[in-house]
Amino acid sequence: MAQARLKHFGWGREGEWITPEEEAFVWTRIRERFRIDEFDEVTPPRLEQIELAPPRVQPPGSLAAVASTEHYDRVAHTYGKSYPEYVLGLAGDYSSAPDVVAYPRNEREVEAVLDWAGAAQVSVTPFGGGSSVVGGVEPRVAGHKGAVTIDLREMHRVVEVDVTSRAARIEAGAFGPALEAQLKAHHLTLRHFPQSFEFSTLGGWIATRSGGHFATLYTHIDDLVESLRIVTPKGTMETRRLPGSGAGPSPDRLLIGSEGILGIITEAWMRLQARPQFRAGGAVRFPDFFTAARALRRIAQAGLYPANCRILDPQEACNTGAGDGKSAIMVLAFESGDHPLEAWMARALECCRDHGGELEHADGTDAHRKGATGRWRNAFIRMPYARERTIQRGIIGDTFETSITWERFETFHDKIKAVTEQAIHDATGHKGQVTCRFTHVYPDGPAPYFTFHAVGRHGKLAEQWHAIKSAGLDAVIAGGGTVTHHHAVGRDHRPWYDRQRPPLFAEVLKAAKRTLDPQGLLNPGVLIDP
Amino acid sequence: MAQARLKHFGWGREGEWITPEEEAFVWTRIRERFRIDEFDEVTPPRLEQIELAPPRVQPPGSLAAVASTEHYDRVAHTYGKSYPEYVLGLAGDYSSAPDVVAYPRNEREVEAVLDWAGAAQVSVTPFGGGSSVVGGVEPRVAGHKGAVTIDLREMHRVVEVDVTSRAARIEAGAFGPALEAQLKAHHLTLRHFPQSFEFSTLGGWIATRSGGHFATLYTHIDDLVESLRIVTPKGTMETRRLPGSGAGPSPDRLLIGSEGILGIITEAWMRLQARPQFRAGGAVRFPDFFTAARALRRIAQAGLYPANCRILDPQEACNTGAGDGKSAIMVLAFESGDHPLEAWMARALECCRDHGGELEHADGTDAHRKGATGRWRNAFIRMPYARERTIQRGIIGDTFETSITWERFETFHDKIKAVTEQAIHDATGHKGQVTCRFTHVYPDGPAPYFTFHAVGRHGKLAEQWHAIKSAGLDAVIAGGGTVTHHHAVGRDHRPWYDRQRPPLFAEVLKAAKRTLDPQGLLNPGVLIDP
Repeated sequence: MAQARLKHFGWGREGEWITPEEEAFVWTRIRERFRIDEFDEVTPPRLEQIELAPPRVQPPGSLAAVASTEHYDRVAHTYGKSYPEYVLGLAGDYSSAPDVVAYPRNEREVEAVLDWAGAAQVSVTPFGGGSSVVGGVEPRVAGHKGAVTIDLREMHRVVEVDVTSRAARIEAGAFGPALEAQLKAHHLTLRHFPQSFEFSTLGGWIATRSGGHFATLYTHIDDLVESLRIVTPKGTMETRRLPGSGAGPSPDRLLIGSEGILGIITEAWMRLQARPQFRAGGAVRFPDFFTAARALRRIAQAGLYPANCRILDPQEACNTGAGDGKSAIMVLAFESGDHPLEAWMARALECCRDHGGELEHADGTDAHRKGATGRWRNAFIRMPYARERTIQRGIIGDTFETSITWERFETFHDKIKAVTEQAIHDATGHKGQVTCRFTHVYPDGPAPYFTFHAVGRHGKLAEQWHAIKSAGLDAVIAGGGTVTHHHAVGRDHRPWYDRQRPPLFAEVLKAAKRTLDPQGLLNPGVLIDP
Repeated sequence: MAQARLKHFGWGREGEWITPEEEAFVWTRIRERFRIDEFDEVTPPRLEQIELAPPRVQPPGSLAAVASTEHYDRVAHTYGKSYPEYVLGLAGDYSSAPDVVAYPRNEREVEAVLDWAGAAQVSVTPFGGGSSVVGGVEPRVAGHKGAVTIDLREMHRVVEVDVTSRAARIEAGAFGPALEAQLKAHHLTLRHFPQSFEFSTLGGWIATRSGGHFATLYTHIDDLVESLRIVTPKGTMETRRLPGSGAGPSPDRLLIGSEGILGIITEAWMRLQARPQFRAGGAVRFPDFFTAARALRRIAQAGLYPANCRILDPQEACNTGAGDGKSAIMVLAFESGDHPLEAWMARALECCRDHGGELEHADGTDAHRKGATGRWRNAFIRMPYARERTIQRGIIGDTFETSITWERFETFHDKIKAVTEQAIHDATGHKGQVTCRFTHVYPDGPAPYFTFHAVGRHGKLAEQWHAIKSAGLDAVIAGGGTVTHHHAVGRDHRPWYDRQRPPLFAEVLKAAKRTLDPQGLLNPGVLIDP
């Protein structure tokens, strides 16, 4: 791992930035949208400018090889990538930094760190790639004597590959690219590509119920886990490798999405796929977003299972350079490691045409690389780099994602958009922008993903962001949606999660936590009260 | 519901039997197989011959409209359809009969019965159709003062249909045929067809993690539940209708498969499908079972998702009339409500041909109705009626089903078959028969389903059965499989479930039960100790 370190502020590794051309495009769009030319600019403190309190606890000598109290380690593990965390980071407020960061190299060392944390009464925050956008990795002491963050990055191996069953045993700290590189030698792929792919880990995906890039079928990490191992303060739990089972409630499904409150996932057997050999796809233009959504519903209920069938509303298509702002765009693609896809693509295009969709260009053509699909894909991957720049000029930009059944979607969408736009105006005094795309679709409904942008004011950014996001999430919960489809709950979504989750299930989660983590060491305050 | 009552002994409703022709076929096969002509015959007691102890508790007047202590009700709710239960029923031993059977008509009445049970300290057994083959509905007093069975059959309505999202809110006591009849008016179907379809209910399917008839993709009930409601002694829990979610561990997945120990499922929103309009299928003949399995693995990993792709080993094909005993048979079918399936079927047949599979006949041809597919299907549906006859002549016949990853399947299969055959010989002194088919396949492995037959001896049937089944399940667990893929755990599988389930997950389940059912009223001894 001769890679550069992860940045202490912003997205990616040290030395990785948005290019000047990309940044120019972003500012052009922002200037057009908000009719604004002057920005107050605040720059984030350099690493050495950040002041930290001395560690409240010191790791024992037995953990010397894996535990650090170094300045960089503590700073870089204070926050994830949520908007309010960026605000704090920009202000140089790292008061919640962990006292100790441990990098265990194997499960035995994970146990050793947990044992020490229990004896020393130190809270424990599991850490994958730190790309959480919902406040999922910020440590809390919560009545304990300090805070240790356990970073799994040293456990990054693909330990075993079963080519026959298409499955691999993978350590939880493997980042996306390293994981795929190890599988590629076997002509296999996990094909789980969240936007954070480069800077997130298998364990993080499982703990947060991550959604992959693909739009249908096997994309949510839940369905890709064949079995897992988790180290809890009460011991280690391992489930069986089973293609399917009817033996009692699924143990895996209780641990998937547990966001580090029940234990530390150390490895999992993951279901893999053949690397795609056949592709068919294209970009389809629709007169408006709801018409595109109706076409997509038809495709989702047809049993065709495209790898990609995102739709972007006209404004979002425009912002990412994929459209002219007048049409909604569907990015449609089928992929297979086994067979040509003409029949699949032809039927999906029929569904589009039935709803007035026009194929802008097919994939594989020259128009493709320059067209909507390519432009959108590039913007999608590069967007997180823009955010650390825009916040410095007081732009409030964030996203929230949900899912809803089809019959409620249109009313739900309009309400959320209206309420969030109003909240932007109320909070900032200016007109903002709220756009929507679908990231995933199911036969019974879509996963709409909302992006909002507003011009905020330094010193009030956190408060303004909170007012806007709260309004949006209030509408999500009131409208029957989920507070998160794949970003997880973290600290940011907790109040709405509490309204969504059945109260008796909260009691069950608390009972599960008391059983596995009786001292309440792990991620206090995440999902349930400490 | 002008239907006849369910039989107190045997499969189905009063007056429903295997036909003389079907029975003659069964006996011909058994005579050939075991070279036996003479049978000791024992007939089950008639309803009025069965003696029950007087009820230990009486329902209060407030429950008079829904609670019964009638002889038939108590007898008919004593057992499900597991082999040891048939042995007890044949011997007239109904000592575990419930004292009271309640038929609540709505959720309020379910709550009232639970409230009374809590106050009167009476154990509670939820009851759907009573088709459990694993001892899932037999009441246990377990230190309480009596036993009440709550039969959900009066809650059988499809309450609400959402045609746009293809989902319906359905009461838990709806039997398969009534449920489908109500959906048919909307041109929709749940398409969940377990073998017990006629005599099992939605609530039972959810509580036991039932597997549908279909072989791939959306077939396990887990994936068809959009949300559910459950009444527990501590209150009612309702989950949100969501196509997908990443908000903490899934509450649904803790309740699906909870086998009545956490509460009584009263209704669920279920994901539906369009009724199929297009079909393509056929029967494919393979030289042997493992070759057929390898072809099927190719299909399962190709992303084609056939509705059916069962394989039967040569002997099982012969027993059901679908083969001549020399070839393995694959029953292959694609179905769609949206599009023709030539491309899908053509590719699947290519996978078969690559492994030496020969199409015996295509579906829709005259050969089809008379051929392997039709014969097997008929035998599959009628088999349970044969079992209540064969046990009367001392035949031991039972099944167990599991799942395993592909790379272990062949060794696993051979070991289980050898061990079970040996156990039959040891227990009965005669050669028996163990056959295998696949009921479901996943990209990472199949769900093999074993059937065994032996000639037992009246008076020793339960003991002989137990020795045989134990040997088979020991091999399943030792080989890494699951104790059940879709029959559930019940009382029969409990010892092996305990070996399969991670010990810490047992502690979590106990904590969940203490939270929701602190008096331990519900199904004591199922899944965890009382």
